[in-house]
Formats: sequence, structure tokens, C-alpha cells
Amino acid sequence: MSLLPSEDRPTPVPLADVSVDDEFWNGRLATNRETTIEHQYDRLGERCLPNFRRVRDGETGGFRGMCFEDSDAYKWLEAASYVLANRDDPDLKERVDELVDLIAAAQDENGYLNTYHQLEFDEERWTNVRNLHELYCAGHLIEAAVAHYRATGERSLLTVATEFADHVDRVFGTGEGELDAAPGHEEIELALVKLHRATDEERYLELARYFVDARGTTGRFEWETDHAEELPGDEEWHTGSEYDPTYYQTHAPVRAQETVEGHAVRAMYLFCGAADVAGETDDEGLLDALVGLWRNMTERRTYVTGGIGSTADGERFTEDYDLPNRTAYAETCAAVGSVFWNRRLFRLTGEGRFYDVLERALYNGALAGTSLDGTAFFYENPLESLGHHHRKGWFACACCPPNLARLLASLGEYVYATTDGGVYVNLYVGSETEVTVAGETVSVTQRTDYPWEGSVDLEIGVDSPVEAALHLRVPEWCADARLSVNGERVEGEADDGYRTLDRTWHDGDSVELSLNLPVRRMMAHPDLPDDAGRLALQRGPLVYCVEETDVDVPPSRLRMDSEDSLDARWDEDLLDGVVALEGETRVAGTEGWDGRLYREWEEHREEKRVTAVPYYGWDNREEGRMAVWLPTR
Amino acid sequence: MSLLPSEDRPTPVPLADVSVDDEFWNGRLATNRETTIEHQYDRLGERCLPNFRRVRDGETGGFRGMCFEDSDAYKWLEAASYVLANRDDPDLKERVDELVDLIAAAQDENGYLNTYHQLEFDEERWTNVRNLHELYCAGHLIEAAVAHYRATGERSLLTVATEFADHVDRVFGTGEGELDAAPGHEEIELALVKLHRATDEERYLELARYFVDARGTTGRFEWETDHAEELPGDEEWHTGSEYDPTYYQTHAPVRAQETVEGHAVRAMYLFCGAADVAGETDDEGLLDALVGLWRNMTERRTYVTGGIGSTADGERFTEDYDLPNRTAYAETCAAVGSVFWNRRLFRLTGEGRFYDVLERALYNGALAGTSLDGTAFFYENPLESLGHHHRKGWFACACCPPNLARLLASLGEYVYATTDGGVYVNLYVGSETEVTVAGETVSVTQRTDYPWEGSVDLEIGVDSPVEAALHLRVPEWCADARLSVNGERVEGEADDGYRTLDRTWHDGDSVELSLNLPVRRMMAHPDLPDDAGRLALQRGPLVYCVEETDVDVPPSRLRMDSEDSLDARWDEDLLDGVVALEGETRVAGTEGWDGRLYREWEEHREEKRVTAVPYYGWDNREEGRMAVWLPTR
Repeated sequence: MSLLPSEDRPTPVPLADVSVDDEFWNGRLATNRETTIEHQYDRLGERCLPNFRRVRDGETGGFRGMCFEDSDAYKWLEAASYVLANRDDPDLKERVDELVDLIAAAQDENGYLNTYHQLEFDEERWTNVRNLHELYCAGHLIEAAVAHYRATGERSLLTVATEFADHVDRVFGTGEGELDAAPGHEEIELALVKLHRATDEERYLELARYFVDARGTTGRFEWETDHAEELPGDEEWHTGSEYDPTYYQTHAPVRAQETVEGHAVRAMYLFCGAADVAGETDDEGLLDALVGLWRNMTERRTYVTGGIGSTADGERFTEDYDLPNRTAYAETCAAVGSVFWNRRLFRLTGEGRFYDVLERALYNGALAGTSLDGTAFFYENPLESLGHHHRKGWFACACCPPNLARLLASLGEYVYATTDGGVYVNLYVGSETEVTVAGETVSVTQRTDYPWEGSVDLEIGVDSPVEAALHLRVPEWCADARLSVNGERVEGEADDGYRTLDRTWHDGDSVELSLNLPVRRMMAHPDLPDDAGRLALQRGPLVYCVEETDVDVPPSRLRMDSEDSLDARWDEDLLDGVVALEGETRVAGTEGWDGRLYREWEEHREEKRVTAVPYYGWDNREEGRMAVWLPTR
Repeated sequence: MSLLPSEDRPTPVPLADVSVDDEFWNGRLATNRETTIEHQYDRLGERCLPNFRRVRDGETGGFRGMCFEDSDAYKWLEAASYVLANRDDPDLKERVDELVDLIAAAQDENGYLNTYHQLEFDEERWTNVRNLHELYCAGHLIEAAVAHYRATGERSLLTVATEFADHVDRVFGTGEGELDAAPGHEEIELALVKLHRATDEERYLELARYFVDARGTTGRFEWETDHAEELPGDEEWHTGSEYDPTYYQTHAPVRAQETVEGHAVRAMYLFCGAADVAGETDDEGLLDALVGLWRNMTERRTYVTGGIGSTADGERFTEDYDLPNRTAYAETCAAVGSVFWNRRLFRLTGEGRFYDVLERALYNGALAGTSLDGTAFFYENPLESLGHHHRKGWFACACCPPNLARLLASLGEYVYATTDGGVYVNLYVGSETEVTVAGETVSVTQRTDYPWEGSVDLEIGVDSPVEAALHLRVPEWCADARLSVNGERVEGEADDGYRTLDRTWHDGDSVELSLNLPVRRMMAHPDLPDDAGRLALQRGPLVYCVEETDVDVPPSRLRMDSEDSLDARWDEDLLDGVVALEGETRVAGTEGWDGRLYREWEEHREEKRVTAVPYYGWDNREEGRMAVWLPTR
């Protein structure tokens, strides 16, 4: 593992510079923009905005919602800002402006801003760092502010954010009279690095590094636990949960952690912040620790869908190879968090394996979080269902839909990255971008039917010939990638998950990448008990599942064979258009089972036609059973 | 399904008339008597006895333990009485006498007895029938009293019980000023029938029938739920749990229930009481309903170990075919309850299928509840473990160890039953009994190495030749049973799970039953997702499991074959002596998995010697993983 020298590190091409026009994504991004984000805005009016208004109007009491309710406004602002980065939308802009004004008006003169405390426990700020999410909300405010600033060029919300960050900087630290503590729910770390990048203010980076290093070292949470009764707020927030350091990733300093533990979303956000700090401070040791954690996560604690955090009890990681399917928690937010973290690890290393994990989480564990019509959402993403797990309109703890919304709204900035001398193409998404490479403007136009088809056409536009490296990601699942330039077969250089074409580009040069997309029958590590003897279907980045509605029997009756030949077939009427997998297989017969639950082994198989659909699309039709891992015998 | 005419129904041969002397059971019964029951007695001193003493001494307040703490004393008395039924034990008898005196001294003049209420909420008796277990404790008192009376002939505790029952009879019912309600936790129903049988008092049977029929019809629990704040006691007992009728089996009248629902122990106790009522009142319709419930339970909601109630959330039944292995709750008490219920169904029908289920629960799901040394106990009995599930010394809610203890202490009365003209041999347990058949005294001496071997020798003793039917149970798992009388092969008549020899018996006649005990590879119904593609090993009544300590790999790595030939081998050093199953099979290889959690299907098998041990004996050695259902591919 090596941290690239900072001058060699790829920088994501910003959202505003990428225009997505893609068969797979267009509809989803429109639904996200027109339905989900609008729905999210409507919900703000119920609890979140009234809180800000009360603070603005100098009232006290009457707080509504969860203690981190403010973050709903910030996440919406962030998503809305991503939308505004790429398009004019006066109506949306007006609502954004109004909300920014409201937030600014609710800010304390000293920079503090948290309506839960301001309305209910104003005298007791920063006394329950473990549970009360003040820094978490601050982080989301900062993320929203940076997104707003980048989209609009306006500093209104950025100023709110810097004033709050300056306040946090004054309150926290190891100095005399400062509070020496890391946040209970991480988020501020990665946000402060964003703020540092947006403002060039070193203090924010220092503060981010402080929070990363303070984790698991200050003893603050033990102190708060011992003094729970004296702390403000709802008693349940203090005494309702025992202090389990592992849950908070405070069981050890981050650099000494070897396994991913505790609340999965918190872990992801921490590791994002730590990666950002490692990059900005050239801290190779910290990156090494993170890559060790990443290996533990991806090699032992991740569902084939990219979902993480296998138990609902604490929404957390459990132990190696403990990945039950029916009770999988695999929170949508955690998959989104994995996307965030993996993108940062790529940025520090230029290695494709991080995008492999990112892509798996994006197309499966995260995308499943929303219904096709953008109005219903999964918080938990099991890999097997007895027919009772369905998306809901909203949640009391409404973290997941807005988290997915901001990811989708910013999809464009996951596609390309640049170095001084080259361009990375990381996701195959129809799009256009204009970047500067070797001091020259280079445009890239990408056309593809990915993930349904593996063919990707790129057209290069330059004013005059440019010497540059084009790095095309070859996903780990692709054993057979072919490349041609202007119709002529080339090999390129294969390294770290990329094929690199390092050459002089002329205007109009075309590159064709052809990724072979066979139907793959996947198996799990022998030490993973729940998938033993079962196979999962994958094609390209998509993991498939079998829904009862397509096979008319519980999917667990299937008895697949690793030799079963399934055909990939485009069906434009199925789930808004998907490539379904279809073929002949077998099911366990039910003959002779009358009145019996167990009997002596006897193989009785019946021929059965099976249809598998992308996992992201399940539970969009009739209710029924579903399984990703299918029995083989 | 037909309810036998009462004169044809088999009556269990009472405990006092059966002397067990059996290779498999002797040690276990001794451990139960000398260790578990003694341990249980010591625990009474911590919370239970002080409560009774405080009431006796006229004190108030200071109650210790759960609201049903009294039942611990009753269950101990019941188990101790079973011990005294078969043996002289002056020390035990003295402690029993002391405890009976203490209980009698704590009883209210009006017959009421419940130390939780008497100490803490004396003015509010019978106001929270849903949650406060007064009738449940009354039921256990009655069971103890009947056992005590039968064992000692003394009426001291029986009088306490009848006075309490008379009080209950005055309080509950549909009459003017009576409380029209069935108990939240069933138990009183079956107890009242026992009391009826012991005293010939019809009122107790009437009251039992009332409680069975009142269930799901009176609306009392809804009323209590609506008036929760006004009810006495710890607030959590009233408002902490929502009223879910299914949990309490009050979702419908018993006769209208078609699926086994809710808290599994409560369901078993209810169905026990209902079966008793059906028998005593010749209520064929009620029996039909129970057999329908039994079919639902045994055909769709029972683990291969006989365990029931698949989720910890409510300790309850869930839905058809929902039998996860790792998270199986399968409470020891519920398996014990299934033993109780099945014995009653046998008693009404004379059908062997009920003893088949009883035997499965007894030798597996129930027996696993105690460690070999009788000092540690399972409350939950999963069929798969990642290595973290271990027996504990005791429980805050200490229902399971005493429940298993009273079952084991009364094992003798599960072996034989008689009708006017015959004898049933229901369990193969080395023992002697003397019964009256056709007006003549008949002795039966049974010798066997069951369940390790399938050979059973019976010797008949009579003063003069007797014409009688000998019904020998042929378990459902036995496809090949051979029978001979005095060395001569006979067939007997096969019916309802028995081979019957109806003949004139002479003194010294010997009968040999030979049950073939092959190693059986079991499979589960195709609609049971968790066992798909897996097999379980069974030999005779014993279900086997694989423990990591025997195979040095996680059992989920095994890839069994239905053709694998496993040998049954007696090992006297293993788990206090067991027949282990041994043979060659395969495990999934771990080669090529470095750094990967999923990969394309590729069968890589390594030869592996496997040892399987009886499920009841797991977790008595080194900690490790365990599985009952083994992957086949």
C-alpha cells in the first residue's frame, strides 16, 4: 500500500464539470430530483423547519423530532445544491435561498447552531458529546455549505459554516479550558477537510486531524457515562444505552484499529475523515491503518451486495464471516458511506480495487434503498425475505433517503478524475466532461449502455494534440476486457485495476472499451456459514435476486447448478427495463411431503424456468419472497 | 382423529409404580437429583424463600425477583416430590416439609397466595390478569401440591392448593361480581384438572373448562390495556409491552385457532389444559381443534430437535417454515411443554405419533437444556452457533432449569400406560413396573441400551396366565422393527404407531423388540429456507450435530453427501459415553481465497473425516462452532 505523492493523486472532476446523459441513470436522477428530493423538502416542513423558525424567533422549547433533526435540512440543502450545480432551477434555488436565510438566522452570535440544544437545553451545550449529535449536525451543515458554495458561488451558507467551525475550534482541543473529545457520531472530520479545501484555512484541517486522533484516547465518553444523571436532555439519551466503546469506534485509537467495528455508518464516516486527513497531511501510517480496516471489511464483513453492518442490534458490524441473509441489516446509509470511503481511498492511491467496492455498493446495496418511483425507501437491505420486508414512505429516523438522494444527485463527480498528466474513467456512465490535462483542455464524451451492456465508447476532443494518459477502469469481475483506439485493437498497460493508454490524443480520437459481461455464479468464502452451498448471480456490477413473483415458488425451493446456463435478456417492460437472467433449472419437488416437515434424504427435482432480476429492483412489484443466495442442491 | 371412549384411554402408570434402572438415564437422573435440584434449592434461598418469610411474618414491601418468583418454590417442590415418589430421602423430605409449612403460613385466610402482590400490591390483587402471573403461580402451586400428595400421601400442601383454588373459583367466572378473564400466562388450566383428578372435585374441572373457554372471548385484556395507568405495580409491566393478542393466544377462542401462535411456553400450557379438559369432558370438538394446532406445529413450526418458538422476540412462534438455525430461540421450557402436551394427546387417542414428537423433544430440544454435569443450562437452543452460545449457571428468569428438572424427575411416568385390557410401552427405558391388567397383576421388566442400541428385552411376570394386549411403540423413524416372543419371531398387529401382541401371557414370557437404528440423513421440507441444501444426521431418536472441536474447522465448511457412509461407534470417553457418528466426507477448500470473500463458483473439495455427536451433548467441551444442518455442496 502506498500513498501516492500528492502531485500524482487523482482529483475527482467536479460535479459542475460533468454532464450525465445516460440510459440507466437519466431516469433515476430525474426521479431523485423531481420526486425524492421534493418529497424530502415537504417533510422538512413537519419537524425540521419549525425548529429553525422557533430559534430564529427567539422562542424556547417545542423542539420536534430526533436530536439530529437539523441534519435533515442540511442533507436536503446538500442534495439540492448538487442539483443546482448542473442545472438552472429557479424554483429550487428560491427554496434553497430561503432555507439558507433561515439557518443563518438561527445561528447563535458565537457561531453555535443546533436547534435541539438551543430550544431545549441551551445551557448545556457540548455536555453530552457521546450521544447528542451536535458535531454530527455541524458536519452536515458544513457539507451542505461547501456544496452550496461550489454550486452557486455564494458564500452565505459557507459563512454560517465557517463561523460554526470557528466556534467548534474554540471549544474543542487539548488546550487550557478546551473540551478534549471526539464526537459520538463521526461526520465533522470529513466535513472539516471539505471546508479546509473550500477555504484554504489550515485550522479546519488541524481540527479534523485532532478529532481523528482524539478518538479512543480522551476518556471523555467514560466521564460522560459516569456522570449521566447530571447531563441534560431526555434521560434515555444518557442512561438508556450502556457505553460500549466498540459501538462508537472508541475502543482504540484509529491507527491501532484492526477490524471494522460498531455502528457501520459511524465507522464509514470516521474512515472517510481519516482518509481525508491522511491525504492532506501525507500520513502514510494512517492510510496503512485504513487499508488494513478496509481489508477486514471487504474480505470478511461485506455482503455480496456491498451492504455492511449485519445486525439491527446497534446497526453494526459483528464479527468475521457473520453475514446472515434474512436478518441482514445492511443499512442503506452504510452502503452509501462505503461509497464515500472507497472514493477517498481511490483518491489517495489511484487503485481500482476501491472503485470495485464502490461500484458494488452503489449499484446494489445503496441503489436498492429507493423504489423505482422514488417514493418509498429501504432502511435495511436483507438478502432474503419471507415476503414481509417492504420499502416505507419515510422513517422517524430519516437518515437513509436523504443520504441516498445526495449520493445520486452528485453521481456525476464519481465518474472522472484527473492528474496532471491524465484522466481516469472510473464509472461507466454516459456523460460529457471537459478537463485540463497537461495544461490543455480535453473533452471526453462517454456513450454506453452500461451496466446492461459492456461496450463503452469514448470520444476525445482537443484543440491540438495532447500527450496524456487515459486510465480506463477494468472492474475485478471482468476477466476479458478489449480495447481499441480508432477501431484498432490495442492492449494498453494493465495496472492497479486500470488499462492505461498513454499516447498523444488528437481531436476526435475514439476509444472503445468492451467489457465482457457473462452471467457469473458466485460463491462465498467457506467460512461464511449462511451462504454455504448456495450461489449468487452477478452480471457486470449487478447482483441479482430471485423474486417469488417471477418463479411462483419460494426461491429457497430452487436447486441451482453451477452449470445452469442462464441467458441475459433485455426486458424493457420489467422493472422500468432491466436485463433479466433466465434459464432452466430445478426446484425441490413437494411430492410426498404431506404432513411432514423432515424426512430421509431423497432428491426429487422438478424442471423449472427461473428468472432473476437485479437486486436493486426487488420489492417493486407484488409482495413475495426473495433470495439472493440460491440453494444448489 | 378420534377421541377414544374414556374406558379405552391409556392411563399413565404412576411414577411411584415405575422403577427406572437404565444405562442412559441412571446417571442423568442422579445428576438431576443430586446436583440440579440441590442447586435449585440453594437458589430459592436468595429471593424466593425470603419473600414467603416476609409474608408469613406479616411484613410488607421488600419483594425480591420476578413477579412470578413464587413459582420457583413450587417447581422445586414438584421436582422434589417426584424424587420422593421413588425413594426415601429423609433430608430432602425434611426440606420439603419445611417449605410446605412456610408456604402454608404465607397463605391468606381467604386462600389467596402470591407474595409479589401480598408484599407490594396487596390491595390490587387480580387487577392485572394479563401480566402479573397470579394464576400462573397458582397453577404451579397446584401441580406441586398434587405431586406432593401423590408422593407422600400427605394433604398439607394439597389443602393449601384447594383453598387457593376455591378462592380462584370464587373470584373468576361469569357470575354476578365475578371477574370474567382467562390468565395472561396459562398454567392454571392443566393444574386444575390435576387437582380435579386428585380430589374428585368437579368444580375444579369446571373452572379449568371456564378458563379454556374464556380465552380470547372476554375482552378483559383490552380493558386492562386501556386502563394501564390505573393498574398497580411496576409501570413497565403495564405500559412496557403493547397488547398483542396473538402473543397471549387470545386472538381467537381456542376452538377457532388454526395455527400455533405467540409465546411458545404459554401455548403449550394452554393446549395441555385444553387437552385435559377435552378428555375429562369428552369434548371431541376441542380435541379436533388441538390436533389441528398440533399438525400446524409439527408440520410447519418445529425444529428437527423438537424445539419450538423460533424467535427470541417474544419467545414465540412466528410463521410457517420460519425456522432459522443460528437465531433459533427454541426455549428449553417450550420443548418441555411440548413433551407435556404430546403426552396428553396420546392419552386421549392412544396414537403413537404423539409420542414420536414427545421423544424427539425429550432426547434433543429438552435434554440439551442441561450440561452433562447438571450445573449449567441453556434457555435458548439454537441449531447453529458461531461459538458464543454457552450454558449459564442460572438465569434472572429461571424458568428453564426447574422445568427440565421436574420433567426428568418424573421420567418414570412417561414409560408405561395401561388400559383395562393392555399395557403400552411408550419409551424404551430400562425399568420395572407392576400394573393391573384385566384385574390381574402383571409385572413388566424392561432391559435395553436404547437409544444407543435398538434392542429391547421385556419380561412378563404374572401369577397365573393373563389375556392382555402389549402395545410396543414403533417410532416413526424406524422402518424395520422385529419382534419375537420367547425367541420366536412374531409380527403382532401394526396400528397407530404400535405393534400389538394380544395374547395370553405366562409368567416369565420374554419379548424382544429389535428396532433397526441406521444413521439417517434427514432433509427439511422444500419451503423451509434455512435448511435448503443441508442435511441433518439422526440415529434413533437422537439428532446429531457437528462441533468444531471434533473437526477442527467451522462445521459450515463441511460439504456432506447424502451418500456419505457414516459409522455409528460407541465411545465411552466422549461426552460421558455416546454413540458418535464417524466417516469420511469433504470440506470446502480454502485455497485461493486469500483476500477474497466472494468468487466465481469453483468446487474445490478436500477429504475430511467427520465426527458428529448427539445434539443434547453439545457445548460440554471446548468452545467452538456447532451446526446441526450441514451443507451438502
